[in-house]
Amino acid sequence: MTPSMTTVPPLPPIMIEPLVRAALQEDLGRAGDITTDAIVPSALQATAMLVSRESGVVAGLDLAALAFRLVDPAITLLVARPDGGAIAAGEMIATIAGPARGILTAERTALNFLCHLSGIASATAAIVASIRGYPARIVCTRKTMPGLRSIQKYAVRVGGGSNHRFGLDDAVLIKDNHIAFAGGITPAVERARAAAGHLVKIEVEVDTLLQLQEALRLRVDAVLLDNMAPEILREAVRLVDRRAVTEASGRITPETAPAVAATGVDLISIGWLTHSAKILDIGLDPSPQPA
Amino acid sequence: MTPSMTTVPPLPPIMIEPLVRAALQEDLGRAGDITTDAIVPSALQATAMLVSRESGVVAGLDLAALAFRLVDPAITLLVARPDGGAIAAGEMIATIAGPARGILTAERTALNFLCHLSGIASATAAIVASIRGYPARIVCTRKTMPGLRSIQKYAVRVGGGSNHRFGLDDAVLIKDNHIAFAGGITPAVERARAAAGHLVKIEVEVDTLLQLQEALRLRVDAVLLDNMAPEILREAVRLVDRRAVTEASGRITPETAPAVAATGVDLISIGWLTHSAKILDIGLDPSPQPA
Amino acid sequence: MTPSMTTVPPLPPIMIEPLVRAALQEDLGRAGDITTDAIVPSALQATAMLVSRESGVVAGLDLAALAFRLVDPAITLLVARPDGGAIAAGEMIATIAGPARGILTAERTALNFLCHLSGIASATAAIVASIRGYPARIVCTRKTMPGLRSIQKYAVRVGGGSNHRFGLDDAVLIKDNHIAFAGGITPAVERARAAAGHLVKIEVEVDTLLQLQEALRLRVDAVLLDNMAPEILREAVRLVDRRAVTEASGRITPETAPAVAATGVDLISIGWLTHSAKILDIGLDPSPQPA
Amino acid sequence: MTPSMTTVPPLPPIMIEPLVRAALQEDLGRAGDITTDAIVPSALQATAMLVSRESGVVAGLDLAALAFRLVDPAITLLVARPDGGAIAAGEMIATIAGPARGILTAERTALNFLCHLSGIASATAAIVASIRGYPARIVCTRKTMPGLRSIQKYAVRVGGGSNHRFGLDDAVLIKDNHIAFAGGITPAVERARAAAGHLVKIEVEVDTLLQLQEALRLRVDAVLLDNMAPEILREAVRLVDRRAVTEASGRITPETAPAVAATGVDLISIGWLTHSAKILDIGLDPSPQPA
Amino acid sequence: MTPSMTTVPPLPPIMIEPLVRAALQEDLGRAGDITTDAIVPSALQATAMLVSRESGVVAGLDLAALAFRLVDPAITLLVARPDGGAIAAGEMIATIAGPARGILTAERTALNFLCHLSGIASATAAIVASIRGYPARIVCTRKTMPGLRSIQKYAVRVGGGSNHRFGLDDAVLIKDNHIAFAGGITPAVERARAAAGHLVKIEVEVDTLLQLQEALRLRVDAVLLDNMAPEILREAVRLVDRRAVTEASGRITPETAPAVAATGVDLISIGWLTHSAKILDIGLDPSPQPA
Amino acid sequence: MTPSMTTVPPLPPIMIEPLVRAALQEDLGRAGDITTDAIVPSALQATAMLVSRESGVVAGLDLAALAFRLVDPAITLLVARPDGGAIAAGEMIATIAGPARGILTAERTALNFLCHLSGIASATAAIVASIRGYPARIVCTRKTMPGLRSIQKYAVRVGGGSNHRFGLDDAVLIKDNHIAFAGGITPAVERARAAAGHLVKIEVEVDTLLQLQEALRLRVDAVLLDNMAPEILREAVRLVDRRAVTEASGRITPETAPAVAATGVDLISIGWLTHSAKILDIGLDPSPQPA
Repeated sequence: MTPSMTTVPPLPPIMIEPLVRAALQEDLGRAGDITTDAIVPSALQATAMLVSRESGVVAGLDLAALAFRLVDPAITLLVARPDGGAIAAGEMIATIAGPARGILTAERTALNFLCHLSGIASATAAIVASIRGYPARIVCTRKTMPGLRSIQKYAVRVGGGSNHRFGLDDAVLIKDNHIAFAGGITPAVERARAAAGHLVKIEVEVDTLLQLQEALRLRVDAVLLDNMAPEILREAVRLVDRRAVTEASGRITPETAPAVAATGVDLISIGWLTHSAKILDIGLDPSPQPA
Repeated sequence: MTPSMTTVPPLPPIMIEPLVRAALQEDLGRAGDITTDAIVPSALQATAMLVSRESGVVAGLDLAALAFRLVDPAITLLVARPDGGAIAAGEMIATIAGPARGILTAERTALNFLCHLSGIASATAAIVASIRGYPARIVCTRKTMPGLRSIQKYAVRVGGGSNHRFGLDDAVLIKDNHIAFAGGITPAVERARAAAGHLVKIEVEVDTLLQLQEALRLRVDAVLLDNMAPEILREAVRLVDRRAVTEASGRITPETAPAVAATGVDLISIGWLTHSAKILDIGLDPSPQPA
Repeated sequence: MTPSMTTVPPLPPIMIEPLVRAALQEDLGRAGDITTDAIVPSALQATAMLVSRESGVVAGLDLAALAFRLVDPAITLLVARPDGGAIAAGEMIATIAGPARGILTAERTALNFLCHLSGIASATAAIVASIRGYPARIVCTRKTMPGLRSIQKYAVRVGGGSNHRFGLDDAVLIKDNHIAFAGGITPAVERARAAAGHLVKIEVEVDTLLQLQEALRLRVDAVLLDNMAPEILREAVRLVDRRAVTEASGRITPETAPAVAATGVDLISIGWLTHSAKILDIGLDPSPQPA
Repeated sequence: MTPSMTTVPPLPPIMIEPLVRAALQEDLGRAGDITTDAIVPSALQATAMLVSRESGVVAGLDLAALAFRLVDPAITLLVARPDGGAIAAGEMIATIAGPARGILTAERTALNFLCHLSGIASATAAIVASIRGYPARIVCTRKTMPGLRSIQKYAVRVGGGSNHRFGLDDAVLIKDNHIAFAGGITPAVERARAAAGHLVKIEVEVDTLLQLQEALRLRVDAVLLDNMAPEILREAVRLVDRRAVTEASGRITPETAPAVAATGVDLISIGWLTHSAKILDIGLDPSPQPA
Repeated sequence: MTPSMTTVPPLPPIMIEPLVRAALQEDLGRAGDITTDAIVPSALQATAMLVSRESGVVAGLDLAALAFRLVDPAITLLVARPDGGAIAAGEMIATIAGPARGILTAERTALNFLCHLSGIASATAAIVASIRGYPARIVCTRKTMPGLRSIQKYAVRVGGGSNHRFGLDDAVLIKDNHIAFAGGITPAVERARAAAGHLVKIEVEVDTLLQLQEALRLRVDAVLLDNMAPEILREAVRLVDRRAVTEASGRITPETAPAVAATGVDLISIGWLTHSAKILDIGLDPSPQPA
Repeated sequence: MTPSMTTVPPLPPIMIEPLVRAALQEDLGRAGDITTDAIVPSALQATAMLVSRESGVVAGLDLAALAFRLVDPAITLLVARPDGGAIAAGEMIATIAGPARGILTAERTALNFLCHLSGIASATAAIVASIRGYPARIVCTRKTMPGLRSIQKYAVRVGGGSNHRFGLDDAVLIKDNHIAFAGGITPAVERARAAAGHLVKIEVEVDTLLQLQEALRLRVDAVLLDNMAPEILREAVRLVDRRAVTEASGRITPETAPAVAATGVDLISIGWLTHSAKILDIGLDPSPQPA
């Protein structure tokens, strides 16, 4: 595990609480947990363990803990393996103790956050590991689940990746359609530069080395080298010669990532980390001796 | 494609509009689409096509259309392949026409809904197809993305699957932890039956045939046969003898589904349809001649 | 009072807090409690009692307590007679202690919840008592106050009743208009069965014994016997012969309920419990010696 | 019907839309109207009539119409008897036409608003009629259903009544508890007057004629004569001699109202109009020949 | 500083919390405080002082304290100079202690509330001071910042001013356009009186002494003397002769206020207190020795 | 007026609608516009003009138009002088036509947005004009009104200014407190660079030329030269020599701006544009002949 993984700052509670509340309300509906309420005595206390069924990287414990706490403030969650921690199959992530009803009621909501975010962190960590030794960084995109962008991008950071834009408003990314509608790279960049604030960077998507040279002449901050074969990428990196950040994109997988990283690009952006990552399978096991 | 796929009723706009608004606001942030606003002339009109890069089943066109319309009511979307329609790689799903700015601004939000929901529908349709000829139905679970349950379950229906519970409040599902906390299947079922309304069904998770027999004696509506090998499942189905709905679960994949379906179970529930399905890769291509 | 009344599980705080916040904000408006703020010294402490002016069943103490606590966390509410408890005229339900301003400011909001929900619970308990000895259960309907369905149905449970559907989405109830639009009971039930999930029950409204026989042939889970005279009801129950749950409806009052229950129906559904129940008159009395 | 009833200005849509949206979402839940969606063909058009089962005064048609329109904008509602109109049992209030699915899906939400508000308007009109000839006006209180105050008070106006305070912030009402905590009427009124804005009136609750005289000396705008017998009320009105508005309160019913009005009080305030009024029973009947 | 300034009751937390949450979320965006999170160690504790750069009156400390607490509940704020307190340039208002990250993250949101509200309170106090000795009170208007009316009007009270209407619904103010559309003052007042509740006062804007006389004949509660020169105002006050509250308005500044107050009017209403007041410049200084 | 002013792209309706709805609801309260509803006949149509009482730059017409339309969709607003247009005292900005009630009810909300945003645009335009001829741009800060940041920053753009950060999350701005807590500029910048995404720029506040040299060695994107006298600023600009963007800040006014601009800095940031700008006084005049 790299040290950077263990030091990703948490999102402040005020950012995650609305998401957790909404998820609980989605699950509780209009009648609450009718199974647990009918079956489990209200005074029963229990303990349970969050255990991973597979190896990976944990992310989302703050959200899981908040889910339990919002259902019943008497539930405590003791973290053994914090966000960013590598976990092996069968290892325990945290212990939970408190009223049994609340633990069962919040279980699915807590796990839905934890498994999804840990899935993203684990996929990110795997691809980060696959290019170890190369300078390239892994970045995610705006191809996220509606409503979950902040926490998905947090999970990418936890996995050792970096974040691309968070929205349409925090950086200029000129894509092929913009170029087509503007009539070329040069007018597109010039208009963007005239409008952009001084802390807004400009990145341009280029499909050919000719386009790349045009973008470099305009001194853009970054170039998105879309769907280029490794040998073209290598030539592009050479052409750029550190005058701009270079970003490679286009369905890059853990298998193809090393070859891309070997071209010397600065960034490899991967949409599927946030739109198609599998969950990390984490379960809630009642511990042998309830408190 | 089965006819049933083409007749899944749409969700009313009042149910999807809050999701689409929130997703657009997440992307627009505090300054809107600074790239498009700077580069694309406000009067420019454009047309574009939604084209699938791979074969699958379309789901989510209402959400995509609403994303465009909420950004600019002047944008129209003409559907060629409605929700539930099978699509081949390279085929067109819909055409879009209207102000170029709005089309580019709404593109990613529209695609995020459409690709995700079509991914779920396509994965569902694939596994449904894999068990064709068997009576079993494919059902999804509560392992969903926080906030997106309604539309994810809709996508499962579009793909030819059915829905399990929508929340903790619309049916009783007695799981292993409930049984453990209640001190057995019998007290658990009896308590649930005493509390449940007359339109609430009761399903019990059983891990062994002995537990199954206990559940059957209690005349539950459905039994969840968790993680049983096909031969045990077959024996369980025989024991049940149509006295309850039988549901098999436990990491069932398109590869293992036929063997499970062959046991005669009524339902096969699959969590990964909603928590780990890959997107269907759909892109927005400006058409050759802008209007 | 039956023991079942005292064991209705409370709704989790996350479900009731948005309602209490909204009610307080509705009352506080844009300037807060200008009377109390002007008149009552901020340091003044007080105690008060919630006292019922009439006999009935208490419901809604969690909402009342939350109203006081949200206005001032220093206010405590000590419950003498919890939800489900029978109360006589003049009896004390709870004592309240804390800053005088907060007690007066939250009083009306707390009482509006408590009196309304106790009114529903009391009306339910009265009609439940009127049919004691018969197996029939009292159920409420979807004829609820907009926005208050969850807590109104909770109050019915507290009063010893059961809940019918919570919404349009948690069970199939085929009414006369559906049958008319479908062209008959048979096509209506068949279409519903094809679409419904395995945990969704199907109930059909029938107006005649002929319709009832058709419904029974389709093996529906429940039949709604609408507006039938007791002698017809009795014949219907005989015809059903426990093959379906039988529900009687149609302006049933405490006076007419015993005759309906005597027919042997399983359920008696009553809309006015939630749309027209009178409040239970509960007042807030400052206690003789303020703390 | 008095002309004033027909001229109550409607609430602007922006005030009622959030309530109607929330009510529909409460009913649609996470899966929508599964009965109608399964049974009624999507292309089917229908007409229906809103018909009153009993005589009364209509209120809430704007909310009902909005419920239908929000479910399907193609539904139209043609009003025959607008808000404020007297209606006899069996008379038609409005006709509805459009897609059959939407009409059935929105029916209950529309009726829940319409029946409840018409119930309030009808109860108000009845008590207003009972005191015809006396100058007294009927007013409602803050004893309202949480979240519904604006529309309940609107219904009171439609029924010919007037509104008391809308919240804690729009007028000063000094009640017995305030007086007790302040140490008397005089300090209470003086503090309130020092704090109140120039458009804020001051009303004081008095339980005795002695208190009344103290209040009059302080030149308050109105006096709340709580739970006084008619003969005391009459004496109080004489004492006031038009120097303040006089309001009688205390469980006044249609039976006791005339005697109260005969004392000459200006206002009779009645909490049960908004906390315990029965609905006006209005139903939705499909018309004989669907369009 | 007058004593009244120190006794303005605080707004209850339930009224201010939504504003503070929304402001923090506006600033945190989708990624939180990326500067502080990257630079400041998470374990670092700090202390800081809120210090005014100029003299004035403090208002808004509850909102500032809540901003810090919502970002990190471990942050404490110790008030030296509460709302309503006069402060000199360089004086300390409060000390803050807790995790350094949270202090820096919440700083701007806390200051935005505190500086703006203190600016309003200070401007109000200045103009109140300018007319000391005259009976006139300073009142604010509905010309407020959208969404901030409650707290802006609170700040006016803190500064020693009073509040005019809080919205369109809590008093009748008949302006020139209403009079024009009604066809005169008399029909306007008569219609308003017929519709208004008994706790609703009626104020009329008059532009001439002739209009004033018409309004007085109608016994309105208050008259708004708009844009009258001091000598006309004086004549108006004489005409009114205490039969109505007199309010002067029309771009009154600290320079012109004494002359207006000298006319004997009861109220001077000033829109710029809430729409154009400058902030009070308050800064956050880390104290010399961090804890 | 520079051409750039007339071409600021509008904010999409989805971004401004929540603000306008909330502002209207704040003003309508629980009873709506009781003055207009009582006095103005519902069928009366009217026309009116938005007229500026002083010269300036218009901003916010979309919000004003939306306010009228949300109150009554039948109201139309015809723009004569769009956002960014220079206006002289007495000139007309737009004409409004439609139901008289809606025009009066929405008037204040519409004007509150329009006057405030036009005030910001006008103040920005004035200071932009004061430094014409110099290359410096005027930028605003995060010192904004809570909840209004997006539209205030839009108004700055309309006035010819540029925007600094929109929140804590879209760029790194290392201020004096960060430097103090990090133990120097170098560790602060290094930590920020390690954490920041590739499209995130880094700006550092420097108080001395020594600090400036340290920042330049670290190749930051921008330097904030806080509270430096013009001669020091000039030396700083010389030292920077175009290696970073230079920003001057510290209570710069229209009077002092030219001297600051003359130093050659790239940016002049001004907090008071958004926290203390006066409104532009715009009024609504009914036109002579109502339609």
